[in-house]
Amino acid sequence: MREIKPIKVMKDMKVSELVEDMRYVGFGARKIGEANDILKEMIKDKECTIFFGVAGAMIPGGMKEIIIDMLDEGMIDVFVTTGANLTHDLIEALGEKHYQLEESVENVDDIKLKDKKIDRIYNVLLKDEVYQTLEDFFEKIYPNLPRKMNIKEFLWEIGKNIKDKKSILRICYEKKIPIFCPGIADSGIGLMIWGRLVKEENSGEKLNVDVFDDLKEILDISWTCKKAGVIYVGGGLPKNFIQQAMQFSNKEGANYGIQITTDRPESGGSSGAPLTEGISWGKMQGKGKYVNVYCDATIALPLIYGAVKGVKC
Amino acid sequence: MREIKPIKVMKDMKVSELVEDMRYVGFGARKIGEANDILKEMIKDKECTIFFGVAGAMIPGGMKEIIIDMLDEGMIDVFVTTGANLTHDLIEALGEKHYQLEESVENVDDIKLKDKKIDRIYNVLLKDEVYQTLEDFFEKIYPNLPRKMNIKEFLWEIGKNIKDKKSILRICYEKKIPIFCPGIADSGIGLMIWGRLVKEENSGEKLNVDVFDDLKEILDISWTCKKAGVIYVGGGLPKNFIQQAMQFSNKEGANYGIQITTDRPESGGSSGAPLTEGISWGKMQGKGKYVNVYCDATIALPLIYGAVKGVKC
Amino acid sequence: MREIKPIKVMKDMKVSELVEDMRYVGFGARKIGEANDILKEMIKDKECTIFFGVAGAMIPGGMKEIIIDMLDEGMIDVFVTTGANLTHDLIEALGEKHYQLEESVENVDDIKLKDKKIDRIYNVLLKDEVYQTLEDFFEKIYPNLPRKMNIKEFLWEIGKNIKDKKSILRICYEKKIPIFCPGIADSGIGLMIWGRLVKEENSGEKLNVDVFDDLKEILDISWTCKKAGVIYVGGGLPKNFIQQAMQFSNKEGANYGIQITTDRPESGGSSGAPLTEGISWGKMQGKGKYVNVYCDATIALPLIYGAVKGVKC
Amino acid sequence: MREIKPIKVMKDMKVSELVEDMRYVGFGARKIGEANDILKEMIKDKECTIFFGVAGAMIPGGMKEIIIDMLDEGMIDVFVTTGANLTHDLIEALGEKHYQLEESVENVDDIKLKDKKIDRIYNVLLKDEVYQTLEDFFEKIYPNLPRKMNIKEFLWEIGKNIKDKKSILRICYEKKIPIFCPGIADSGIGLMIWGRLVKEENSGEKLNVDVFDDLKEILDISWTCKKAGVIYVGGGLPKNFIQQAMQFSNKEGANYGIQITTDRPESGGSSGAPLTEGISWGKMQGKGKYVNVYCDATIALPLIYGAVKGVKC
Repeated sequence: MREIKPIKVMKDMKVSELVEDMRYVGFGARKIGEANDILKEMIKDKECTIFFGVAGAMIPGGMKEIIIDMLDEGMIDVFVTTGANLTHDLIEALGEKHYQLEESVENVDDIKLKDKKIDRIYNVLLKDEVYQTLEDFFEKIYPNLPRKMNIKEFLWEIGKNIKDKKSILRICYEKKIPIFCPGIADSGIGLMIWGRLVKEENSGEKLNVDVFDDLKEILDISWTCKKAGVIYVGGGLPKNFIQQAMQFSNKEGANYGIQITTDRPESGGSSGAPLTEGISWGKMQGKGKYVNVYCDATIALPLIYGAVKGVKC
Repeated sequence: MREIKPIKVMKDMKVSELVEDMRYVGFGARKIGEANDILKEMIKDKECTIFFGVAGAMIPGGMKEIIIDMLDEGMIDVFVTTGANLTHDLIEALGEKHYQLEESVENVDDIKLKDKKIDRIYNVLLKDEVYQTLEDFFEKIYPNLPRKMNIKEFLWEIGKNIKDKKSILRICYEKKIPIFCPGIADSGIGLMIWGRLVKEENSGEKLNVDVFDDLKEILDISWTCKKAGVIYVGGGLPKNFIQQAMQFSNKEGANYGIQITTDRPESGGSSGAPLTEGISWGKMQGKGKYVNVYCDATIALPLIYGAVKGVKC
Repeated sequence: MREIKPIKVMKDMKVSELVEDMRYVGFGARKIGEANDILKEMIKDKECTIFFGVAGAMIPGGMKEIIIDMLDEGMIDVFVTTGANLTHDLIEALGEKHYQLEESVENVDDIKLKDKKIDRIYNVLLKDEVYQTLEDFFEKIYPNLPRKMNIKEFLWEIGKNIKDKKSILRICYEKKIPIFCPGIADSGIGLMIWGRLVKEENSGEKLNVDVFDDLKEILDISWTCKKAGVIYVGGGLPKNFIQQAMQFSNKEGANYGIQITTDRPESGGSSGAPLTEGISWGKMQGKGKYVNVYCDATIALPLIYGAVKGVKC
Repeated sequence: MREIKPIKVMKDMKVSELVEDMRYVGFGARKIGEANDILKEMIKDKECTIFFGVAGAMIPGGMKEIIIDMLDEGMIDVFVTTGANLTHDLIEALGEKHYQLEESVENVDDIKLKDKKIDRIYNVLLKDEVYQTLEDFFEKIYPNLPRKMNIKEFLWEIGKNIKDKKSILRICYEKKIPIFCPGIADSGIGLMIWGRLVKEENSGEKLNVDVFDDLKEILDISWTCKKAGVIYVGGGLPKNFIQQAMQFSNKEGANYGIQITTDRPESGGSSGAPLTEGISWGKMQGKGKYVNVYCDATIALPLIYGAVKGVKC
């Protein structure tokens, strides 16, 4: 048995040193340390294809640079996220901002915010006027969109029309990283398309985006890759979509897994289910390396990724 | 200020009596009582259109009869759920079962379950062979499906082909209840379609289900209804999809709201966000009646619904 | 394997019927059903001594009648709670009240409450003036208290001085139920004693309440009882105090266990630890019957107890 | 409004740099950043007396060095903790160890651990034989303990008998830091005293440790200090004991507050209550600076403390 070795904090300590020390303690810190080990191993393993699922309001929460960095460094082979995250990515790419709530989140007055036309996401705010900016963008690009696409193609098309380099949509398009978002209709982007579909109801050239078509691509990847590694920030649809690609492959599930969530397992939802539960389904290999980090992702992700940043893998 | 009046449990007490008493205490019990009040008020309000969003593994968890009952009684005007719930509904409709885990869930051995070809959802099990039953069903119905549909039409088509009366898919079809599932690709049903799409790749008759098209219908309803009531079991895509229909209506959000979740607000995801946060967005009216019930839905839903069952509204 | 049988809610359904049905489903509802079974079995087992630990603000939350009922019916052999619960019990016994917060708890203004001299416990309130009522009570009884006691004797002395029948302190005194509260100094009652100790600093007759002395009694009971059943509402000191009495007995831990908590296991605290963890320590028997109910106790306790109320055991 | 500025992780980034960046994002990370600011301000404020409450199994979890460092640097004026933490501190001071669980905590077998005489605390283990080491220690020191003490004096006496410099009990004794543990009976140390009390039942020299006596000291400090800062790791008795000292002072509560917990507010317990709730009670000043960090303390504490380590305050 390996002894617990208490963390000793040092002046000018590096993030990588702190995370290294976390490996030798207990509870959540140990899991941060393990997640870091598994991430390094995933990256070093040249046979491993990495699937990254991101749910939760990670762009408003300030994780955009880290996600872009991971995509930009070639660490991620398949990216799955929610429509909301892509909408917020687009909002920032179009020059709009997110802001910090000033007052205490426990005593906030949402009616006052409503009066000021400000929308709240826990302790983050955005101006309601961003929807006009989205409108203007889609007004411009919509006529030139191909009329028949699957969701991945649709998202790459949006990315193609974004100029800001600091955008998830743009970098996925540029680097040809497969990006999946099965629930895209459930987002501000979806609403913008609705606004246009209504108008062209009787036109012969209705936009048609197929909901099932790009399943072929993610399942092709999960079948043909030699090994799979999964990273889940939050649960929801991004996690589940990757999980089912793991289940329906020929390799008894992922070889590596990292899950960061604050959801609980007891209510039976997929978001809170530990990766171990996936072993029974063949989503995760029984002998795979995995860790369930129960932590706010805005805290855990910078630590886990921060400790591999710049490390030769 | 209204005094706390401790709950006095009586022999042969009815569920409706217990829930009534819960109104006069504190913490979570009070919220069960309030949710019951709000549900009654929603039902009685003839001008109110009720949107019901259900996430989490509610069919495996044993909530199917209650959901069907709510749909069957005409209580629900719009139903939104996850692909997983519909897959499990279909699995049961085709004669397959879910089972209880026998051993302690805290000391379960997932590798052993894997060897027995049994899949685990917390303390609920199902046999891996159910996927063959799904295959057989889709093998049979697929050729006769219309080639061009939106998601709601697709789900009604499945419902039309189900014989078992105890099915959500069937009852929504029969009663023409609009059923939305934007993330349908992320489910066993999605996988069945993938299996068929792969084979007909080069055929001219490819199934095409549009991801955005039925947004028009839910937004039409949210625009034209006089008042709106929302009920969320879990968060995820079903909640968010209804929330955005509320935001993009002309009435400053829902008049009534009940949310049952175990997710937390602090990590910023939509699933854990209290309904109050929606006020800032115009998803919930500032003067609306709403309650956030933080509780396992398999406990809260039978209480809240049980106390209105049979009540003349 | 036992099939999941969905709960069917009926008009005029009894609490006991609903809880019975919960046994056949999954997730949290199943655990309510199991807890009810285990409670019935504990009560019927004539060899079983029942230890009841109650943490959390259960008196403000409206659980007083249920706890008193359980004590009054002879169901509980040993009672352990926090100083806070006993203080709130005493406050109500002296005629003061707890109240419901009127506004939404998510948008409350604590500074305004402070100005009104009202103290908040989530969605429950009490007037700050109750402390004066406590002062008056202790002013009166203090001079006649024995000068040397252990904590249990001290609590029985307070109970002896309470007239209101609806008091935990009084009923424990009357029925001679051993009541333990190792952290009594950490409460309003503790503060009242501090106020008096300060004044009598130099008197020869200082009150002296020993912190360790009544450990002998609870350990005597855990050693001499044939079987043990434990019921934990919340965790904290009440749970841990009973757990250590189980560990240091001669019977490898409790035979029956029910735990109701919303705390999480991952951060390593005793409050969120599942009962299964106690098996390793000898606090719970490996073959014991136990269940971890993750639920707000104001919801779970009325259900679990409600379903045994009046049942011949 | 201040813009969200996404965290940019850099190679060789320091912990203090990461925590600084966290200030400009949302959700939990922002709170880590704010906690760090508040901690710095507390330390710099020469008029501020700092109260540190530590619950949860922080010694097994590997936080011992950090806590000792904070005590050693003179940062902490009053220390309050659980009996369990002090017992584990003593266990390590006597040369025993804590260990890491090797297998997945989600699929652990507690019966097997029991057979190996190993006790489990989530993913941390200790050998059951440590209790013999405790016995031997108390066997030796017990006869020479003063017969009449309050709890603080009792803990200092234990500290005096510890040789290992890496011990919380020893450093509090050495540096004369007031250490409070109202629930000391609820711990392995309590059990050791029980073992001895039983034997000396009829001796005239029974050890007598008063439960209320040291309340005078903590309340003296809270009355006489100019300003107060509170730091809570976990809730439980340590938090509540400090909170009541704040409430019963003459300054309307603490000026600064940091709380790290994973407990939830909705079930009404003190452990999960946000610091804001304390404003209504006068435990926290309405204009005070405070932050509620919802995070595993083994992750949050090294970050928050790590970022001030070595900083000239």
